[in-house]
Amino acid sequence: MHRTIIVAVGNELLIGETLDTNTNWLCRHLTALGFKIEATLTLPDKIDVISKTIKSIINDNWIVFSPELLIITGGLGPTEDDLTLTSIAQALDTALEIDKTAYDWVKEKYQNLAKESLVSSSEMNPARDKMARLPKGATPIKNTVGVAPAIKITYKNTTIISLPGVPQEMKGFMLGEVQTILSEQFSVGAHIEKELWALCGDESILAPILSKVSEKHPEVYIKSKAKGFGQNLRFQIKLHITGTNIVIDEKLKAAIEDLEKNLNEHNIKLDKS
Amino acid sequence: MHRTIIVAVGNELLIGETLDTNTNWLCRHLTALGFKIEATLTLPDKIDVISKTIKSIINDNWIVFSPELLIITGGLGPTEDDLTLTSIAQALDTALEIDKTAYDWVKEKYQNLAKESLVSSSEMNPARDKMARLPKGATPIKNTVGVAPAIKITYKNTTIISLPGVPQEMKGFMLGEVQTILSEQFSVGAHIEKELWALCGDESILAPILSKVSEKHPEVYIKSKAKGFGQNLRFQIKLHITGTNIVIDEKLKAAIEDLEKNLNEHNIKLDKS
Repeated sequence: MHRTIIVAVGNELLIGETLDTNTNWLCRHLTALGFKIEATLTLPDKIDVISKTIKSIINDNWIVFSPELLIITGGLGPTEDDLTLTSIAQALDTALEIDKTAYDWVKEKYQNLAKESLVSSSEMNPARDKMARLPKGATPIKNTVGVAPAIKITYKNTTIISLPGVPQEMKGFMLGEVQTILSEQFSVGAHIEKELWALCGDESILAPILSKVSEKHPEVYIKSKAKGFGQNLRFQIKLHITGTNIVIDEKLKAAIEDLEKNLNEHNIKLDKS
Repeated sequence: MHRTIIVAVGNELLIGETLDTNTNWLCRHLTALGFKIEATLTLPDKIDVISKTIKSIINDNWIVFSPELLIITGGLGPTEDDLTLTSIAQALDTALEIDKTAYDWVKEKYQNLAKESLVSSSEMNPARDKMARLPKGATPIKNTVGVAPAIKITYKNTTIISLPGVPQEMKGFMLGEVQTILSEQFSVGAHIEKELWALCGDESILAPILSKVSEKHPEVYIKSKAKGFGQNLRFQIKLHITGTNIVIDEKLKAAIEDLEKNLNEHNIKLDKS
């Protein structure tokens, strides 16, 4: 399972003006592909904060791991508060320079937008150039929805992918070119989710059973949730397992059998329908 | 402005099963009160990760600041994967012990739940005890919605408030007892937001003007967003200022006047209606 950290950049997220749905979408999507999200962060539009955070994540100084994959969303646009590329360059101790391929993409985009009268001028300017000024060593990835290219850059064992914050653009990348990059580079696998119901209304009895089963099956993530009230209170139990081969199917089956056995010992029925 | 970090705990957030709406609600609510959210994090149900992260946040090792306020949501329930209190104790190098007040609250809750036949037994058990086992030095805060008490604990300059992850319970605390604690301890103030429209369809012209005004008025956060297409493309400009006295009103006014002057120089009209 590939250790992954997701960073969302934007003051609008930290003042609560915008609900960050990108991170949740990425967590769900990447989990399904077999990545393991170790943590997510939201950072302000500040070069020093973004670059120091990236630096400590990729150098193993942050918490207990350095990730194989670091996905950053936001901060790639033309305005002065779009600071992600500058921050990545600073974190990796490298310079920004115009990437010819990215420049041509941006230029072509504005020519098309001008033809459609969506912008007044087709000419490049400093704000437009900015989107093609990438950290040295970065590979640009074409934006099929908007303008700003994404980038991929590798540092030690970490693949850094920096995507725009606009949800449609982010998803366009993830379901297109980035999906290809990930499957070339990682053993992208499967994620299985199974929903069961424990016919028991008391979490304090259920909890020790679940933790016993969890301990015995560390690769299966087991989570319970109360549904209903009073006599109708039941516990939904969700089992998740993520992995890169068909072994996970067997492992999940074993965990469910064990769970059922333990619940039966406490006269709790398990509804698997 | 009181530097604040928000941490959400829960594997269900990292696998994308649950969209974390708590953090967004807290960002918006605390910003309006005059707190400045410097970063937010989501962490898994792992003691070592949670405790190391808290430790580095409160000891100034994380990025560039130690916050005055650290709000943690999630991980306070009776199950074995509710690990926040253990993690806080570990981060603060202290022990967990049964808090008499918290114990009585939890006991009373279960007695009431048993009376209403919502649980089968009113007796305390290890899972229920757990919710009253607090880090030494913590002040329990009564849960008016659910069972698990919240806690407040102070370490050096940081006030740590740990709240349940269930949104109704979290909001119950924030709008009740925690609001009182915050206003006693911090100079809780105001947040002003103003929406304007730039009648201009080209962000690459608008961007340098906005950044010029931003630079001159560092306390005002200015963000633009494209709305509409083609000839109807307009830019919404939002100005935010947060502070603890009426001076912010004057500062916002000055920034808007300056913005209008700069836009006029480029023949861009500002719609303030």
